[in-house]
Amino acid sequence: MWTNPVPNKPGERGETMRTCYFDHAATNPLHPAVLETMMPYLKEEFGNALSVYDLGGKAREAIENARQEVASLINAKPSGIIFTSGGVEANNTALRGIALANQAKGKHIIVSKAEHHSILNSARFLEKSGFAVTYLPVDKYGLVDPGAVESAVSKETILISVTHASREIGTIEPLKEIAAIAKKNRIIFHTDAVSTTGNIPVDVNELGADLLSMTAHQFYGPKGVGALYVREGTRLVPLLYGGIQEGGRRAGTENVAAIAGMGKAAELARVEMAARMDHSVKLRNRLIEGVLKIPRVYLTGHPENRLPHHASFVVEYIEGEAMLLMLSMKGVYAASGSACSSKALKSSPVLMSLGIPSALAQGSIVFTLGRGNSDEDVDYFLGEFPAIIQRLREMSPFAKGWGEEGQGEKCYVGG
Amino acid sequence: MWTNPVPNKPGERGETMRTCYFDHAATNPLHPAVLETMMPYLKEEFGNALSVYDLGGKAREAIENARQEVASLINAKPSGIIFTSGGVEANNTALRGIALANQAKGKHIIVSKAEHHSILNSARFLEKSGFAVTYLPVDKYGLVDPGAVESAVSKETILISVTHASREIGTIEPLKEIAAIAKKNRIIFHTDAVSTTGNIPVDVNELGADLLSMTAHQFYGPKGVGALYVREGTRLVPLLYGGIQEGGRRAGTENVAAIAGMGKAAELARVEMAARMDHSVKLRNRLIEGVLKIPRVYLTGHPENRLPHHASFVVEYIEGEAMLLMLSMKGVYAASGSACSSKALKSSPVLMSLGIPSALAQGSIVFTLGRGNSDEDVDYFLGEFPAIIQRLREMSPFAKGWGEEGQGEKCYVGG
Repeated sequence: MWTNPVPNKPGERGETMRTCYFDHAATNPLHPAVLETMMPYLKEEFGNALSVYDLGGKAREAIENARQEVASLINAKPSGIIFTSGGVEANNTALRGIALANQAKGKHIIVSKAEHHSILNSARFLEKSGFAVTYLPVDKYGLVDPGAVESAVSKETILISVTHASREIGTIEPLKEIAAIAKKNRIIFHTDAVSTTGNIPVDVNELGADLLSMTAHQFYGPKGVGALYVREGTRLVPLLYGGIQEGGRRAGTENVAAIAGMGKAAELARVEMAARMDHSVKLRNRLIEGVLKIPRVYLTGHPENRLPHHASFVVEYIEGEAMLLMLSMKGVYAASGSACSSKALKSSPVLMSLGIPSALAQGSIVFTLGRGNSDEDVDYFLGEFPAIIQRLREMSPFAKGWGEEGQGEKCYVGG
Repeated sequence: MWTNPVPNKPGERGETMRTCYFDHAATNPLHPAVLETMMPYLKEEFGNALSVYDLGGKAREAIENARQEVASLINAKPSGIIFTSGGVEANNTALRGIALANQAKGKHIIVSKAEHHSILNSARFLEKSGFAVTYLPVDKYGLVDPGAVESAVSKETILISVTHASREIGTIEPLKEIAAIAKKNRIIFHTDAVSTTGNIPVDVNELGADLLSMTAHQFYGPKGVGALYVREGTRLVPLLYGGIQEGGRRAGTENVAAIAGMGKAAELARVEMAARMDHSVKLRNRLIEGVLKIPRVYLTGHPENRLPHHASFVVEYIEGEAMLLMLSMKGVYAASGSACSSKALKSSPVLMSLGIPSALAQGSIVFTLGRGNSDEDVDYFLGEFPAIIQRLREMSPFAKGWGEEGQGEKCYVGG
């Protein structure tokens, strides 16, 4: 496929050490062809897309080409694509924009407990603004029960927002069923598809999504650009007021280079998707199989119905951060949960919502694979990880009860 | 200084035609050193700034270096800098963030009529949300009268927002006097300094600004990144909810390359500012002198107290768009007003606020110079512009009264 984006580095004894970037859910490296597409707009084609002369025309053309490619990736009309500064802006725009545009119809919205902070915190903001919010529970796999969605619906409900897949546990949600309930009740349906778009097939019509959020850096596009899909006829109050960019739905001078890059990344994702998924799933399955041989390590999220590049675990008696640091010293880059919460030092609300006890949730670790990874990466990692866990457990005051019944036994975490 | 960023092109008869980019208020080309600073973050240093391993650390370091440079440019503390996706987001965050955080104290805000659409439309949004807004008039030069600010202040006033300089007419506002009134009345003072930051000296303490908006692509930095300065102790409700980036004040995966680029652009602007201003003002003065020799063309904005690179006019009997198209055929790139409104086909609210009649305001044209421009550019332009105006007037039904008293005589427009 593609060479390792992180150059190998000298190890502890000066030897060349393999580096394994297993944190594609945090961000992806730029695909070289994406950077190539962006370069003219970072150099001579620097025009403002609203300018009437040819320099502006070239910028407009780049944006409209990108809009076409992004629309193709999700089987949408190009006119439904609003470029944003990323997934967080797309999610904020969706929740608040729909709430404000439809508050005369009702002031109740439904979200799941497995949502990203940009959804959960936008929902909390709406609560402060007089909206009622239902936070749907998830089961031990992280799945939202469509029956629970149906029960939560009231005459006041104007919006249901459920993620397509959690970044933390990889579980893919039953969106079709949830969207059907929304449609039956004439409620607008939004999905945060940041972790799925460009990684697995996403079709707004098949999913039944009225709005869908995505971000380019999750599929080898640049940071600082994302998009919100809005189905024709769906009223939305803008989040950013100003000029007439994006049909008056998102003001601000267009980030032409980044938008062009997102278009190229979307095109490549569409063309290469099957091969990328096949590549990732093979490596991921080997990684899961290898890690689960270590005692008292449990898979989180759904064992089957999950992102093809996603493997997440909780490790008993150890803190996720400690594992991350030891792994990074060995050249393996992983995450302990959502990148957006990693530094907040709080237990992940998503893991808590699965019913995992707080202490065990602290031992969360997430590996997300990508195009640049190889069998050798997985072999190298599987050779190092058990010793790291053993060393940390030897130092851990929590591991004293080791050999007795661990708390992991008491809760099912998908493993 | 620097070579012309737009390559010369073949003209109508196949000859090499000079290209003159006179639209730096719309956007700037990237400074080559800025692009150089950005490149590693578009390639191998692609990490998410929240990741704990070294790839994340490098990204954090780049962001904090940039924060330091941006703070230095405006004499602020680095902790006061919040990176955004651009000036529009900074302005939206300032207006709504301050309004929401302070609504218990009062629900009245004051803005000027010479503001950018991102301020005016945010103010209108706040009006719909139950706030009262005073839109301050400007005089024939586009100046806000500090006395009028004082008169507009009430016990309910929580925010005054006045632009540092209008992008359309170049007039620099008396911010110190306005800020003093705000301070005396314990009202928060924000300024949209998008057109000034990096172009003329901006010092948040000297100006007395509690909040200040800026964008990188106005000073040879990348598009898609800007910043909001917020004075220590000023409460602000975030516009984008999500993770803990930017101290919880602006969520979203950081656009590391663009932020690093903004930092470099800020550094260069600080170091080169005097030379750039000197270069621009000489060219600009020659341009104004030359253009005002054409009959019935009037300078808009303040004749002295204006952006050093800014020359704006209204031309009787002609539409701005027609001039732009003819000029662009000659390789001269200019604007008919704010880039954000150029396609809205409405009379500019800023020009209307000066008392310029609607028909005359249609003949608006704005030239904004930059580092890449030369004396030869100005000579070439001055050689072409009178003939373009003459040709357009010959075709114009409005020019029938030519030779009689024009409407321009009836309104003073600074010329």
